[in-house]
Amino acid sequence: MFELRKVYIVGIGFTKVGRHFDKGLKDLFAEAAWKAIEDAGNVKVQALVVGNETSSSLQDQDNLGAYLAYYCGLGKIPAWKAEAACGSGGAAFLTGYALVASGLYDVVMVGGVEKLTDARTQDTTWALAKAAEAEYEAFYGLSFTSLNALFMKYYMDKYGVTRDEMSEWAVLMHENASMNPYAQLRFKVTREYVNKSRVIAYPLRLLDASPISDGASALVLASEDVAKKLTDTPILVAGVGAATDDIYIASRDRLDMLIATVLASKDAYKMAKLEPSNIDVVEVHDAFSILGVLDLEDLGFAEKGKAAKLLAEGAFRPGDKPTVNPSGGLKARGHPVGATGVYQIAEIAMQLRGDFPGIKVDGAEVGLAQSIGGAGTFISVVILKR
Amino acid sequence: MFELRKVYIVGIGFTKVGRHFDKGLKDLFAEAAWKAIEDAGNVKVQALVVGNETSSSLQDQDNLGAYLAYYCGLGKIPAWKAEAACGSGGAAFLTGYALVASGLYDVVMVGGVEKLTDARTQDTTWALAKAAEAEYEAFYGLSFTSLNALFMKYYMDKYGVTRDEMSEWAVLMHENASMNPYAQLRFKVTREYVNKSRVIAYPLRLLDASPISDGASALVLASEDVAKKLTDTPILVAGVGAATDDIYIASRDRLDMLIATVLASKDAYKMAKLEPSNIDVVEVHDAFSILGVLDLEDLGFAEKGKAAKLLAEGAFRPGDKPTVNPSGGLKARGHPVGATGVYQIAEIAMQLRGDFPGIKVDGAEVGLAQSIGGAGTFISVVILKR
Repeated sequence: MFELRKVYIVGIGFTKVGRHFDKGLKDLFAEAAWKAIEDAGNVKVQALVVGNETSSSLQDQDNLGAYLAYYCGLGKIPAWKAEAACGSGGAAFLTGYALVASGLYDVVMVGGVEKLTDARTQDTTWALAKAAEAEYEAFYGLSFTSLNALFMKYYMDKYGVTRDEMSEWAVLMHENASMNPYAQLRFKVTREYVNKSRVIAYPLRLLDASPISDGASALVLASEDVAKKLTDTPILVAGVGAATDDIYIASRDRLDMLIATVLASKDAYKMAKLEPSNIDVVEVHDAFSILGVLDLEDLGFAEKGKAAKLLAEGAFRPGDKPTVNPSGGLKARGHPVGATGVYQIAEIAMQLRGDFPGIKVDGAEVGLAQSIGGAGTFISVVILKR
Repeated sequence: MFELRKVYIVGIGFTKVGRHFDKGLKDLFAEAAWKAIEDAGNVKVQALVVGNETSSSLQDQDNLGAYLAYYCGLGKIPAWKAEAACGSGGAAFLTGYALVASGLYDVVMVGGVEKLTDARTQDTTWALAKAAEAEYEAFYGLSFTSLNALFMKYYMDKYGVTRDEMSEWAVLMHENASMNPYAQLRFKVTREYVNKSRVIAYPLRLLDASPISDGASALVLASEDVAKKLTDTPILVAGVGAATDDIYIASRDRLDMLIATVLASKDAYKMAKLEPSNIDVVEVHDAFSILGVLDLEDLGFAEKGKAAKLLAEGAFRPGDKPTVNPSGGLKARGHPVGATGVYQIAEIAMQLRGDFPGIKVDGAEVGLAQSIGGAGTFISVVILKR
């Protein structure tokens, strides 16, 4: 295999996740971008790739790369947007990674921004539904809530998983988020509370779902030479992978797994020369609790059908290997969709640097972030190493 | 400078540009994609990056990379969208170039697709206007026609350029397009016809504008090893560059040049170790005739203020160095916005291979393609070598 030029994360910045009624896209992104630049020793960024899903629908703003480069005062640098629905942050990261690994640029900013809370609920739901198949799914009123309810029903029936066991996902995520200063949902919940929350699309309940969020996140990536000059704690991008699956889910072979996670992680593990057993900490894409459960299985941390049960028995807690979503995950940290994939990578990098502001995974050497666009339609996996 | 891994164009495919009332996004892209794959000796593509501007607005379809990979039967490969307004094709190319140059993949498809003609005119105009600044420009009714009228008025006044001289752009483009079997506007026009065409936004007339188009285009990029196995005529990507400018044009220093063209081409020339005088053939982004004129100056083919006059005196014709837009340009080949940047690169590559189906530039060794997103807001420049 061709030896890739090494790429490091040298700067990290993000906003609090939540309802930012006082801030627009550009305000949110500027905060994240300049925090990341400051964290990277005020380095000059040579290019920007930004992930976003809904700015075209909700803010009527395209050309988002140039828009943000201008308003954030980054100069007349190359800048464009990467889009893969809620996996846009992962797609932006892959793009920025390749821009540095290729040698085209030495310092690239990868970011994500999303502003969902200002719109009417039906507009936000519709904007997000555009990630599904427009003619055969979204047109008939299918939303991501109903798609994930389908996954959940099928999984619970096939593997005999109880409501009580599924609820443990939310319990753990809220507990982790309660320690995370920038998380959106910082309250703890009990199994009973989750079990009795409102049914959104049977069997999926309100507490199985991530909130609607605003937020922005940014990373500065650099080549080895530059990275070692800028920081004592550069974090190596050890492996990356991505894959897609049939966007029209009726055509898929299986509904109890996201095959794109398996394919993407296979590539990332191979490139990093690592296995699931090497991973100390993960941030997985749990827009709904069922996705978190599938993710752990598809990434190789549990046998198929076993993750929810293991979780209910007490696995995947802080200190376990892997520790799962110490941020609180999409479920409780929040899910500013196009920014989420970049938040996850930032969180893993901070765990490895030892400066994550919430639950710390002591001595973590290797971490993994997984991002999903659509109903498992686009998936990226990034493995980082201290 | 770090030595970049060489990247070659090994496969080219596109549809006729025009009104495809019988074809959707997926049908158009499948035609282009499979022509490109066939042209590349039926190679297996490892990843897809697709440029598009308006599918979110006009087809309610996001997650376009995965959508097209699925419907075109490309397999569960990594796939996402790159967006930089009408420069999206250029952004997709830069992404795909970096994916191969980095060594992450050996064979990557870069494509573009746009479907504009099915929508109501006001919807298309609005979808395209999202490339401008949403709050300070588009909100007040500014469209790309009015923005370009502003550029045109300023340029004509400042440099004393006549209506007759400006009209020569359309005359040449329609003449070139008349020889191009896949062009949208294959009729010739006279200066008088252009001069008397309807005023759209003074001083811009209907014949100064490119048409509303559907179309799809695809390229297969490959590493050196793979390229030399697949084809006897691999085309080297010798130089790439990109830059942005203030999206809010009221804040720009100058309106008689697109500074992003200057910056992007400087990088591309430097990487290719070439100068404007080395370029045999160019495809420039002439969504409006004024842009074509500015492009030639900003790329270094004419002094500032002189390109329209040189053109009217007979320069830039087939056989001249450089030959300008032998395809007919956006003006007459057509402008399926997110696909246009990929069409241009495909056209230059075919000129260098010697199999362009329209006007051939005999013995061309080096060519350049320039793509614009917004009002000169994102610009990419790609230099190809035989």
